[in-house]
Amino acid sequence: MAKEKKKVQAITSMDVDFTQWYTDICTKAELIDYTSVKGMFILRPYGYAIWENIQAGLDKEFKRTGHENVAMPTLIPESLLQKEKDHVEGFAPECAWVTHGGSEKLEERLCIRPTSETVFCDHYSHIVHSWRDLPKKYNQWCSVLRWEKTSRPFLRHREFLWQEGHTLHATAEEAIAETEQMLEIYADFCENVLAMPVVKGIKTDKEKFSGAERTYTIECMMHDKKALQSGTSHYFGDGFAKAFDITFADKNNQLSHPHQTSWGVSTRMIGGIIMTHGDDNGLILPPRIAPIQVVVLPIAQHKPGVIEAAQGLADRLAAQGVRVKTDVSDQSPGWKFAEYEMKGVPLRVEIGPKDMEKNQCVIARRDTGEKYFVSLDELESKVAELLDAVHEHMFQRAKRNLEENTYPCTSVEEVKEKMATQGGFAKTMWCGDLACELYMKENCGVTSRCIPFEQEQLGDTCPICGKPAKKMIIWGVAY
Amino acid sequence: MAKEKKKVQAITSMDVDFTQWYTDICTKAELIDYTSVKGMFILRPYGYAIWENIQAGLDKEFKRTGHENVAMPTLIPESLLQKEKDHVEGFAPECAWVTHGGSEKLEERLCIRPTSETVFCDHYSHIVHSWRDLPKKYNQWCSVLRWEKTSRPFLRHREFLWQEGHTLHATAEEAIAETEQMLEIYADFCENVLAMPVVKGIKTDKEKFSGAERTYTIECMMHDKKALQSGTSHYFGDGFAKAFDITFADKNNQLSHPHQTSWGVSTRMIGGIIMTHGDDNGLILPPRIAPIQVVVLPIAQHKPGVIEAAQGLADRLAAQGVRVKTDVSDQSPGWKFAEYEMKGVPLRVEIGPKDMEKNQCVIARRDTGEKYFVSLDELESKVAELLDAVHEHMFQRAKRNLEENTYPCTSVEEVKEKMATQGGFAKTMWCGDLACELYMKENCGVTSRCIPFEQEQLGDTCPICGKPAKKMIIWGVAY
Repeated sequence: MAKEKKKVQAITSMDVDFTQWYTDICTKAELIDYTSVKGMFILRPYGYAIWENIQAGLDKEFKRTGHENVAMPTLIPESLLQKEKDHVEGFAPECAWVTHGGSEKLEERLCIRPTSETVFCDHYSHIVHSWRDLPKKYNQWCSVLRWEKTSRPFLRHREFLWQEGHTLHATAEEAIAETEQMLEIYADFCENVLAMPVVKGIKTDKEKFSGAERTYTIECMMHDKKALQSGTSHYFGDGFAKAFDITFADKNNQLSHPHQTSWGVSTRMIGGIIMTHGDDNGLILPPRIAPIQVVVLPIAQHKPGVIEAAQGLADRLAAQGVRVKTDVSDQSPGWKFAEYEMKGVPLRVEIGPKDMEKNQCVIARRDTGEKYFVSLDELESKVAELLDAVHEHMFQRAKRNLEENTYPCTSVEEVKEKMATQGGFAKTMWCGDLACELYMKENCGVTSRCIPFEQEQLGDTCPICGKPAKKMIIWGVAY
Repeated sequence: MAKEKKKVQAITSMDVDFTQWYTDICTKAELIDYTSVKGMFILRPYGYAIWENIQAGLDKEFKRTGHENVAMPTLIPESLLQKEKDHVEGFAPECAWVTHGGSEKLEERLCIRPTSETVFCDHYSHIVHSWRDLPKKYNQWCSVLRWEKTSRPFLRHREFLWQEGHTLHATAEEAIAETEQMLEIYADFCENVLAMPVVKGIKTDKEKFSGAERTYTIECMMHDKKALQSGTSHYFGDGFAKAFDITFADKNNQLSHPHQTSWGVSTRMIGGIIMTHGDDNGLILPPRIAPIQVVVLPIAQHKPGVIEAAQGLADRLAAQGVRVKTDVSDQSPGWKFAEYEMKGVPLRVEIGPKDMEKNQCVIARRDTGEKYFVSLDELESKVAELLDAVHEHMFQRAKRNLEENTYPCTSVEEVKEKMATQGGFAKTMWCGDLACELYMKENCGVTSRCIPFEQEQLGDTCPICGKPAKKMIIWGVAY
């Protein structure tokens, strides 16, 4: 069947040119389009539908854990941005500035938010007065703008969609627990929904967020063995609260500064999905996030009853809550096969006159290419079972990539050699000094990805400077 | 019970000062907060939760009718905005302009979108080539910015949240059908979910959207008898398509310009809810949009088992899909009564030791103040019944306000007298001339609200100029 299959939209092989392969998928799977402003992209319906599913999944988790959504202004006065010294140093160079409203020049210029700590703090300083007002656990879904020099679909946009959580707590312990809880939510979502295995850990001071005391991160490994930072959660201590004069009276009427967190993930996750799972035929979407989980295609659809049969199967699956689409357009089966392969639809169900005679259909898996002849009586149960199997297989395959390309190293030379010949992550002990981080960048071309929660004792000394080691750290080349 | 009830957050009476009453509700029901940028507001959790429910309800309707969501850039190059002459004239005076990115001055300044026709058209010109590519039925949920001189919570923000649908069709007929369909969706939503009766009609050329051939509108009447334009749907013909060079090859390979629509509603709807339903004790929310539909309050909660009983009732209602909250904080019942009254929660369920003995609870309606003693065995059915009854009562009350304050008039003097003594809407015949519209503005202080779909024959001549009348039109004072 369908031997006539042909590629209507050939893409560059990832072995030939990984960057071009990635860009080809972004455009040919119709995830994005370019615009007349450099670095600004359109999320087309199929790309945005993935983001809507990410939103729905995470938003449910945020609400389950007691967070509330709000909407803050897009524009931040320059004076507000400048209140926290480290923060403004990190972000001001990347701000887009509004200088005119209508035909009038503004008295103070306004930046388009690169992140919203400052406006949340300003608001909190108005509404938080007493212990009764804490905790405040807010989140917003919005876009932010960072005027970067280079851009790439999903990975580096001048404007991108994200969520930013901002919370305020009576104690440091509670704020740290919140920071860690949100990282766990991100990690679980990546693994259980996006089928992307993560390394959880803490950023070094050099790599942490501007203004944070501590940044937690989840790091994923892509097909090309580079790292993608896929979500971060920051603990601020009371630094912002002091800068913005946020205080609360405790039960004994003593004034204190609350402790603060922020955490976020963005459309960058979609880039991660592409580079974790895709292949030379296009996108491969994890079933739990796929906008279309099953496509039902009629074969020889001009024959009587075939279109109705296909529609019937789709209706049965939709009734089970499966996200399903039927394509009864006049394109050839070969065209349709290639199209839904490119779009990474996890399962394809085919039904034609011969199948109908045998009370069966064919189910093809996008992740492995395997085909199954399935009795129509078992359609719902088999589809449910296969969607789970596809998820599990995609996760295990990605996990193998991460594990097989993570190398414990005990010398700088070993890291350099591994990076030059294999790529991937190198694990070493580390003394905690910035100088050693800079040395690794200079000599091996790697940055620290994180100090992982799961520590191993690879030795007693820092292989870079020879001083006593404090922690095991992971190095890699990052997007 | 609860005779000690007291106002913890008194608000200005609407009869004393309607504007202050409105602002008081916006702040004391914790819907919004002000920011350091004039005209920019924060949507606080309770206000944003109303918007989330509006989004969820409308988004479902948009998808049911075949629309897809996308995300377009926030920034529009000045040259793109200028491509359609009428459109730029309407919007350029209200644009906020980005002139610098990081430390560099931009070669071309970019405006923050006041609306996105131009970017959708630019995108459509890239992706539409053939009849196979039509229709395109896109929508986006985002914020837009209009640099207005004055501002008021929900009614006039410099930045506000909205949705903007933008569609492209092969024929004018199909585009007009789309424009009308979306107006009907807005009207049904207003009436069946927000309990706000609407007048559906067409805007005059003077009042239509910049660049549109025809603008459809739904107009609502507020407590103070002023009009609120609550949703609009625009038919553009092929004007934008020509300006942006969007063409498609039909089945005979002939090139044509497609026909276009756009349609939108915004957070302004929340202002409409407040001014349609609220009273001097605060907000009154229609049950189908209320973030909290039922609040369960324990009475004498220090007595054994009371808090558990209240929680038990809430759990039972939540299991039925009711949006329910229990407040077991140490605030007094009087404080809690006033708080949830201010927040407009449709039903309050009270349970105390005496109720528990009698296997009953008390249910109080926010819209009428009526109280019912309800057997605990009938909790779910009675709550469901009352939520529907509250909606119906609120809708009928608002409809009466609209009908009783709409006056058929046959002379300018009569309109002037009605507007001066009663306010509300005046219906007259109209010749269709701009001069008569301007005359009414000058002499009666009213603008045309719409030419309603439901026409009446009030006479044969325009009462303003005496020429033959074409249509019946509605006049009023608008927000």
